[in-house]
Amino acid sequence: MDWNYPIINRLLDEWLDEDIGHGDLTSPALKKTTVSAHWKAKEDGVFCGGPLIERLFERLDKSVHVTLLRKDGDHFQNNTRILELNGAPKYLVAGERTALNIAMHLSGIATETARLVAELEGTGIRLADTRKTTPGLRLLEKYAVRCGGGINHRFGLDDAAMLKENHLAWSQGIASAIQAIRKHAPFTAKVIVEVETSVQAEEAIRAGADGILLDEIPPLALHALVPELRDLAANRRANQGSNQIILEASGVNPSNLKAYADTGIDLISTSAPITKSSWIDFSMRFD
Amino acid sequence: MDWNYPIINRLLDEWLDEDIGHGDLTSPALKKTTVSAHWKAKEDGVFCGGPLIERLFERLDKSVHVTLLRKDGDHFQNNTRILELNGAPKYLVAGERTALNIAMHLSGIATETARLVAELEGTGIRLADTRKTTPGLRLLEKYAVRCGGGINHRFGLDDAAMLKENHLAWSQGIASAIQAIRKHAPFTAKVIVEVETSVQAEEAIRAGADGILLDEIPPLALHALVPELRDLAANRRANQGSNQIILEASGVNPSNLKAYADTGIDLISTSAPITKSSWIDFSMRFD
Amino acid sequence: MDWNYPIINRLLDEWLDEDIGHGDLTSPALKKTTVSAHWKAKEDGVFCGGPLIERLFERLDKSVHVTLLRKDGDHFQNNTRILELNGAPKYLVAGERTALNIAMHLSGIATETARLVAELEGTGIRLADTRKTTPGLRLLEKYAVRCGGGINHRFGLDDAAMLKENHLAWSQGIASAIQAIRKHAPFTAKVIVEVETSVQAEEAIRAGADGILLDEIPPLALHALVPELRDLAANRRANQGSNQIILEASGVNPSNLKAYADTGIDLISTSAPITKSSWIDFSMRFD
Amino acid sequence: MDWNYPIINRLLDEWLDEDIGHGDLTSPALKKTTVSAHWKAKEDGVFCGGPLIERLFERLDKSVHVTLLRKDGDHFQNNTRILELNGAPKYLVAGERTALNIAMHLSGIATETARLVAELEGTGIRLADTRKTTPGLRLLEKYAVRCGGGINHRFGLDDAAMLKENHLAWSQGIASAIQAIRKHAPFTAKVIVEVETSVQAEEAIRAGADGILLDEIPPLALHALVPELRDLAANRRANQGSNQIILEASGVNPSNLKAYADTGIDLISTSAPITKSSWIDFSMRFD
Amino acid sequence: MDWNYPIINRLLDEWLDEDIGHGDLTSPALKKTTVSAHWKAKEDGVFCGGPLIERLFERLDKSVHVTLLRKDGDHFQNNTRILELNGAPKYLVAGERTALNIAMHLSGIATETARLVAELEGTGIRLADTRKTTPGLRLLEKYAVRCGGGINHRFGLDDAAMLKENHLAWSQGIASAIQAIRKHAPFTAKVIVEVETSVQAEEAIRAGADGILLDEIPPLALHALVPELRDLAANRRANQGSNQIILEASGVNPSNLKAYADTGIDLISTSAPITKSSWIDFSMRFD
Amino acid sequence: MDWNYPIINRLLDEWLDEDIGHGDLTSPALKKTTVSAHWKAKEDGVFCGGPLIERLFERLDKSVHVTLLRKDGDHFQNNTRILELNGAPKYLVAGERTALNIAMHLSGIATETARLVAELEGTGIRLADTRKTTPGLRLLEKYAVRCGGGINHRFGLDDAAMLKENHLAWSQGIASAIQAIRKHAPFTAKVIVEVETSVQAEEAIRAGADGILLDEIPPLALHALVPELRDLAANRRANQGSNQIILEASGVNPSNLKAYADTGIDLISTSAPITKSSWIDFSMRFD
Repeated sequence: MDWNYPIINRLLDEWLDEDIGHGDLTSPALKKTTVSAHWKAKEDGVFCGGPLIERLFERLDKSVHVTLLRKDGDHFQNNTRILELNGAPKYLVAGERTALNIAMHLSGIATETARLVAELEGTGIRLADTRKTTPGLRLLEKYAVRCGGGINHRFGLDDAAMLKENHLAWSQGIASAIQAIRKHAPFTAKVIVEVETSVQAEEAIRAGADGILLDEIPPLALHALVPELRDLAANRRANQGSNQIILEASGVNPSNLKAYADTGIDLISTSAPITKSSWIDFSMRFD
Repeated sequence: MDWNYPIINRLLDEWLDEDIGHGDLTSPALKKTTVSAHWKAKEDGVFCGGPLIERLFERLDKSVHVTLLRKDGDHFQNNTRILELNGAPKYLVAGERTALNIAMHLSGIATETARLVAELEGTGIRLADTRKTTPGLRLLEKYAVRCGGGINHRFGLDDAAMLKENHLAWSQGIASAIQAIRKHAPFTAKVIVEVETSVQAEEAIRAGADGILLDEIPPLALHALVPELRDLAANRRANQGSNQIILEASGVNPSNLKAYADTGIDLISTSAPITKSSWIDFSMRFD
Repeated sequence: MDWNYPIINRLLDEWLDEDIGHGDLTSPALKKTTVSAHWKAKEDGVFCGGPLIERLFERLDKSVHVTLLRKDGDHFQNNTRILELNGAPKYLVAGERTALNIAMHLSGIATETARLVAELEGTGIRLADTRKTTPGLRLLEKYAVRCGGGINHRFGLDDAAMLKENHLAWSQGIASAIQAIRKHAPFTAKVIVEVETSVQAEEAIRAGADGILLDEIPPLALHALVPELRDLAANRRANQGSNQIILEASGVNPSNLKAYADTGIDLISTSAPITKSSWIDFSMRFD
Repeated sequence: MDWNYPIINRLLDEWLDEDIGHGDLTSPALKKTTVSAHWKAKEDGVFCGGPLIERLFERLDKSVHVTLLRKDGDHFQNNTRILELNGAPKYLVAGERTALNIAMHLSGIATETARLVAELEGTGIRLADTRKTTPGLRLLEKYAVRCGGGINHRFGLDDAAMLKENHLAWSQGIASAIQAIRKHAPFTAKVIVEVETSVQAEEAIRAGADGILLDEIPPLALHALVPELRDLAANRRANQGSNQIILEASGVNPSNLKAYADTGIDLISTSAPITKSSWIDFSMRFD
Repeated sequence: MDWNYPIINRLLDEWLDEDIGHGDLTSPALKKTTVSAHWKAKEDGVFCGGPLIERLFERLDKSVHVTLLRKDGDHFQNNTRILELNGAPKYLVAGERTALNIAMHLSGIATETARLVAELEGTGIRLADTRKTTPGLRLLEKYAVRCGGGINHRFGLDDAAMLKENHLAWSQGIASAIQAIRKHAPFTAKVIVEVETSVQAEEAIRAGADGILLDEIPPLALHALVPELRDLAANRRANQGSNQIILEASGVNPSNLKAYADTGIDLISTSAPITKSSWIDFSMRFD
Repeated sequence: MDWNYPIINRLLDEWLDEDIGHGDLTSPALKKTTVSAHWKAKEDGVFCGGPLIERLFERLDKSVHVTLLRKDGDHFQNNTRILELNGAPKYLVAGERTALNIAMHLSGIATETARLVAELEGTGIRLADTRKTTPGLRLLEKYAVRCGGGINHRFGLDDAAMLKENHLAWSQGIASAIQAIRKHAPFTAKVIVEVETSVQAEEAIRAGADGILLDEIPPLALHALVPELRDLAANRRANQGSNQIILEASGVNPSNLKAYADTGIDLISTSAPITKSSWIDFSMRFD
């Protein structure tokens, strides 16, 4: 993730506008001198959002100085300092809430991701996000997932093609759907098919799917199904030179991740780090 | 909340752009006919976001028809239908994720708000939000709080003036800070002061504060402090014709709301409905 | 007013685009050297717009240097220098008209405000603006009113609630209207009711209005009405602990302000500094 | 002027956002029924802004119906109806102030323009505007000038080249400046030179200027100068086939227009309709 | 390609603004009646841009009616009608140039693509575009390539990872570069490596590249190299279960496509349809 | 052309967004050190776009340094260096494609313009562009035409009025159309009429047209027509003091420019440098 892209500046401006409106009413009460402050963590967690905070205050005023004491992805403990700020009170106050809001939100996601990734440690199964992200923040929430040790699934409808239950109901069958997609999509795009039965899985693999999404299939059933699908894919490779298959499980209970340890799947995709996480609490304190 | 404001259209466009990018890759696989689908709740909750969903699909294509079976603020039960959709599969699919994301997120906030508001029922204490909102979504998250029965605190730094601990550290004292603010703020703006001691509270009330924020003061201490502050304010009114005082508690443990029942405070402000809530799960199913 | 907010940058860019279009046609005729120029006032007035001019030329080119000889709110006399500029002719020329236009317009508002505020000196009545502002410039025109010594009324429909004649005609009566507003508005928002009769005023005060707008009521009638309303409000405070009342007069002839001196009202709101003012004439001259 | 251009929609959205912010607080107090209202003029004038009002309410809600009783450019008298509105109160109220502000501002400009144009009636001299326009509103203010019977000068720095006193001080002389401009400007662009002496005028005409701006030259002096310049231009035409000359006077006292009647100039350019006009007062009244 | 996405509306508005500016000066000369016109092709080609034309005129005015006589991707001959228009002259004229410009440009790309695709017919080799597209038009130019029968390469730096000569010079070697990318990229993203030698190719395939870009390698050399690379990839599949390899040639002379017929490559990527094509000439004629 | 205008920044941001999307996937593979690179021309041509490249990389990161070895308008030969770059690999790579795309496109236009201008050398006829420009790039493509030695025709529908065949078919005749336009257009705007017969030309000149567009009239016919039109215009000048006439030819075969040498026309307008040019090939190479 690089931060010097135009889209980052636009997001920062939109957020500042949202909080500042026609101006901070407390500004006339604040001294004109330079002061120092710091952020203190009020619980344990994984930090995310540092470069955003630096840029946010820089956009408000170039004289504000931010010193990050934690890098994105770093674990921190309750009661430790996260960063230090130095500048005119009116700018510290004008950016405080927006900066805290984004960092607390993203750190919450990174922290929850790290917790789930730790559950999978040693299994070889990776944890991926989904497209269930807060509207307007996908870029950053997926970054937070990476800070927590997870990997990203596609970024949008244009990034890979997924044929889910609704798609299959509204198309002409798996094979013809894959064919139609391949005709129009960039050749670099992968096609993933959600299946409910091994018959569907077989059809998808035969039709050249790059990945199979196994939704809400219990670990026990996966133990049987996965080798069968790997065989089918190997067979396809031998005969048609087609791609290896990615096997992804979803609809997984986040408290039961270890049960998938020996199923042979490649990854578990879950929205839990985004839809079920709480913000990590930081507060800004004057020195 | 009215929905025909330009800002709503801009938000919807930004969200659709974020998910659709350069185009839904599955679109060529979908039939051209009109189909029906519905949203089903997968847990109990309070609904929020209906008018947004209507407008989102209308912006994608005027031929998509949305029938809301629940109004914003309605309670619903697991497994019930929330809304019905009718239109071309390519538009149902292009808008599905974005529509679900915003409705699941806002319904999560409304649901958690309603749970906390129910705790306070009969106490006369109202539940208010804070400025801890997800960057870019404040307008809608505060609407979701209202749908759950809460009330809104100020919308931004320009909407009322709050003097918190940092402000006081960086200004010339409570009285002079209030005076500086009143000189520049619209005369309609209220001034609220965060206090830690009864001496500070007295100073703020004498200086004409419209509200006192009592942060992290235990219910027991409030029982003693509140009548004292009410007396001070009543005295001020008699002498100076100044405003009644609003007494607001923050830093409150959401699981302990009932303990504030007889403290005499007017409202409890908490970010919990936004920072500690989970999304409510809906899924779109073909008919 | 702080100037480092994103909205200021956006306004400056829109204005420059409007004047420059696809490029200043005279630019190829101008020398590449650095030159000096200054702004001279061609009449007396109150200055407004300095920080905007600094930022406008900085956005055009960082090498242009602006030295403000007058601060916003300063009185100046005909024929005096307002500011000095130093930079490449092509940038002085590209920003000249836009910079002059905004400063001449805002200084006209500040000057007219100061003239009216002077009329009210010693009366204890403050002069407030209204929402009659030039579309796109409310933020800055209200700032100019403050530079002239006036105070700001609400910034928009979201900043306080005013029930005017049309509202009352289209609602269910004053009490129920106030109740409906209080239910949805942030608790920090004030409610002001426009009244035409003392019966209406009484109803509004009983219903808990924070302010009463007395439109087009002659000074003589105010002398009788104001004490009556103050009594009602005092009574309300005693019984219900409700707020002090703000009494605002509008529909006032700007040439007759002194007649309101002893009426007991808190403020006069008038759009005259914006709708009836002329621009103050400055011109840019090479040194 | 056509109104279906994208820029008009963008202006309307910006203005509505400015007034509505996060929502009209009075909206919950208003009935859901359809009501009628009208605009009444409170003084005589020339109307301007009708199509903008139609589009503004249409953007708020398609169900609002606007009936214009006056076309742009029509004269109206005090106390007459200008237009009628029909729709839900919440939309009438949400658009009221913005619609009135732009129409009152533009009608003020059209009215003052018409007054000055009437002064010049029969003289053959046309009245033109300048680039002294309110930032963000040039397109519409120049339209208002046309509605009042005036003509437009160039729309911006890209629309024609004017060499004024500062330009000449910062270039290499009139002839070389014109040559440099002609080399880079579209061949359709005219070049106008501001002169202070007949020597400069002669130089400009010889160098092929399309127009001469005679700034702050008294009518008496113009009587002598204009025929001389016409002769020079005629001579140029005969010898070099170059263009006819446009003679423009500026720095003219608006109260002295008749004095220019027989000077032979083509047009008087003045910013007075924009910088010295007052808004025309309309008010919206329920039926 | 669907056309109801927000980005399409924004592009259309930007283009119309660019041509219309502050208004079509010829508009006052045009009749108010409804007229008919059509577009005639002045050379043979493949059409592209129809749905854009429909939406462009709809944004200008809903009363304009466009009848497409050719679908995107259709071949047409010189002198045939492409579409018919019906509406007010001022809207036909306001949209004419912008509509023609985009359609002539895109049809030029589709036509040149079709010509090159025809060269490859029967070879099994597909023709793909590159990221050499006109800034601001990538979405549409890549659509035009599809209309001409080509396929799309990645849409941007975020859509797949390509390690080219510069990347390899600035990284730690092929294997470590692929590893670093895989760690941060969505798991759906493919990695393609540009190679100059068979040693590099071998390294890339061993390191798990999804594709190999063979730049400026003559057809003869490809005949030897391709089977070798296929073997390597087959071997990798057998051992590591890794992906099939895509073999892409670039730096190809567009006039020599047939020479690649039996090389065994999967696709040829070329910017020629975009960087070397001419616009197809259409003109709008009144009926 | 100056480059510090807001519109240039907006274009650069849009282009970077288009290519970078949610981030360059190769960025994690690149070293953090500073490296050097250069651009090499792969064919002869005329350079255009240097200042854009400087600003583009500056927007990505202020630490990137661009040294232009060629100024815009300079001729360069195959295999020579155009510019040098110094900075972190991730920024060189993130800006590379966008920078090359715009410079290759604009240099293609400048090169083709220069070729045609050379054909007209010594004839006194100037080469002008048209409004056939790539949507979104008119400002820059017309700049490229100037870099190649051509001149610009009007920038848009608002920059001058052209009455073409369609306009005349949809208006009330040449004279009344010119009159309607003059009434509403800025007085600085020229009016040009496209004619097909000498009768039309005579009518246009009598009606005061500033220019005549002679479309698709062969050189031989021009030899007879032009002196006739010059006489008519001279006559008009004598009688009515009206403007000199500009005679413009269009519909000209670019390979036949010399045939127009003695026709007496002022300029040839052609879209060929934009619609018929190829991009000039540059490539970025590490040092």
